Amino acid sequence: MENVKVALWGFGAMGSGMAKVLLGRKGVEIIGVCDMHPERAGRSIFDILNVEKGNRMDVIVQSNIEDVLTEKGCDICICATDSFTKNAFPKLKFALEKKVNVISTAEEMSYPQAQNTELSKELDRIAKENGVSILGTGINPGLIMDLLVVCLTGCMTDVKHIEAKRVNSLSPFGPAVMEEQGVGLTVEDFNKGVESGKLAGHVGFAESVRMIGDAIGFNVDKFEQQMSPIVTKVDRKAPYGFAAAGDVAGVNMIGQGYVDGEVKIDMIHPQQIEPEMEGTYTGDYITIKGTPEVSMSIKPEVDGGLGTIAMCVNMIPHVINADPGLKTMIDLPVPRAIMGDYRDFIKR
Amino acid sequence: MENVKVALWGFGAMGSGMAKVLLGRKGVEIIGVCDMHPERAGRSIFDILNVEKGNRMDVIVQSNIEDVLTEKGCDICICATDSFTKNAFPKLKFALEKKVNVISTAEEMSYPQAQNTELSKELDRIAKENGVSILGTGINPGLIMDLLVVCLTGCMTDVKHIEAKRVNSLSPFGPAVMEEQGVGLTVEDFNKGVESGKLAGHVGFAESVRMIGDAIGFNVDKFEQQMSPIVTKVDRKAPYGFAAAGDVAGVNMIGQGYVDGEVKIDMIHPQQIEPEMEGTYTGDYITIKGTPEVSMSIKPEVDGGLGTIAMCVNMIPHVINADPGLKTMIDLPVPRAIMGDYRDFIKR
Repeated sequence: MENVKVALWGFGAMGSGMAKVLLGRKGVEIIGVCDMHPERAGRSIFDILNVEKGNRMDVIVQSNIEDVLTEKGCDICICATDSFTKNAFPKLKFALEKKVNVISTAEEMSYPQAQNTELSKELDRIAKENGVSILGTGINPGLIMDLLVVCLTGCMTDVKHIEAKRVNSLSPFGPAVMEEQGVGLTVEDFNKGVESGKLAGHVGFAESVRMIGDAIGFNVDKFEQQMSPIVTKVDRKAPYGFAAAGDVAGVNMIGQGYVDGEVKIDMIHPQQIEPEMEGTYTGDYITIKGTPEVSMSIKPEVDGGLGTIAMCVNMIPHVINADPGLKTMIDLPVPRAIMGDYRDFIKR
Repeated sequence: MENVKVALWGFGAMGSGMAKVLLGRKGVEIIGVCDMHPERAGRSIFDILNVEKGNRMDVIVQSNIEDVLTEKGCDICICATDSFTKNAFPKLKFALEKKVNVISTAEEMSYPQAQNTELSKELDRIAKENGVSILGTGINPGLIMDLLVVCLTGCMTDVKHIEAKRVNSLSPFGPAVMEEQGVGLTVEDFNKGVESGKLAGHVGFAESVRMIGDAIGFNVDKFEQQMSPIVTKVDRKAPYGFAAAGDVAGVNMIGQGYVDGEVKIDMIHPQQIEPEMEGTYTGDYITIKGTPEVSMSIKPEVDGGLGTIAMCVNMIPHVINADPGLKTMIDLPVPRAIMGDYRDFIKR
């Protein structure tokens, strides 16, 4: 059997991280990479990744996707370029129309039914017309604050209230994330950034809440979210960020899913640099009230970058095996690490 | 759309518990119950359960399955009668040949490929011939020490070693469980019971280990398990069991899955009455070494009885929706509580 053939669209931290993992796996190969960034376009991926090419074919990063994706030229394309469905849509459509399965890292694509009903129907239609499937996934949304919650309700006969809490450190992230999350800003500048929409905070609550609701049969009729600065009392310093005492060390995002006028799903997601300096310990926590009650914790939290890379490369077989159409994490079998030969996981 | 129609084969603690949950749900009805126990056969389930019949049709417990299962007479039969595939097999075959989907609570049926290769092929063949599907599930095996492990590996790019540990209390269980697990025996009698095979301990390690291995691509070439008494230093008293100091308060089961001569999967499952009396606190723990490491805990442990009841009633739609054949938890979408109308979860 031939190797599973993967194209990567976007070769930033996520795309290049996936490439590194895939190069270490059996029965799978990278057949092309597209990235327009001048530091990457035109270079060999082995050079960029600092990985021995060995007897593999070389792969040169292309700036034009037409040079990477041809009709049925690969089994799947992982599109790691956007956070929002609207921005990702033209790329996803292009790949699907090449009759190639697609995985998107766009947070909103984890459950595009939530905020992009029309585009999600359109993607489902295009995928079906071309006999392929498309999935949005990542660590969160994609697993920690949604699929894992759903999975844990499986051992319950009654669910009254769900709280999903992810407390993570921003310290390992680079300057882009520091800026996006407002690390180091004064409280005044942070609030201005929120008002102007410049500071987006975490993207995905609306999708996670709707995914949980649809999965278990909670009719979520209202969703709200709030964003506030985490103000530090001490100077905090991370490799790429600094927050002076009195300034912003990160963002606290909270969200609520209402069922029949009552909050049944609470999302809590504070992200900051050096949380331990003020006694905050990172972790993922799911508390579900009902019968029986389930109180889960993962300490420390699952690493966001590695987790997203893993979810994408691990879902490849499930997406290839799926019936045509738009899929979400609640439609497919549970995610799993693919430690064996990728070809063994493909149903032909 | 008509209600989802369920038959229950076995109306002990599990079967009657499922009935109680189903009677509280929408879009689903119990069309028949089979149980030969003289205290139950011939009686109304509403009488046995002490639940108001309201305007529902009465359901009388039948001692003969022929009076319950007719060809396509219901959508699914939950068979809660056995622990071992060999013993359950004739019943499962009977139900499948009535063109009825099946859920089995038999621990070995959670992954019959592990120890009953021929019977599992036979069940797959019979199910396919009759256009229905069959699944074995429960809290453990079924979720805690296998499917949940698999799900958590989904966020990992590399898995080096898995430890699944379930520390639970036997105190809520009745006299049958006390006897099965050897509670109150002297160490000598316990060891005799193990030698003679009278004390089985936990059933399901072989299935859980093989399920994990197959899911992630670990070729488990050897499996071993050991069983030892948990000897108490103090008198311990539970509603249905008593262990004097120096005697047996429960069973510690451990198991190992080998990959290429190395233990890659460790299963640890001590079960005892009143564990807190000697400082043991119950919980479910999954520790996966690799990239990134994942350390999960659920404290206290998920209640075994309620958990098994929930897993069975919650998997009903997935089993009805599945392609024909023998299915396992790693083939189907993630379990989830069914809080809405059952009919909304069925793909027709």
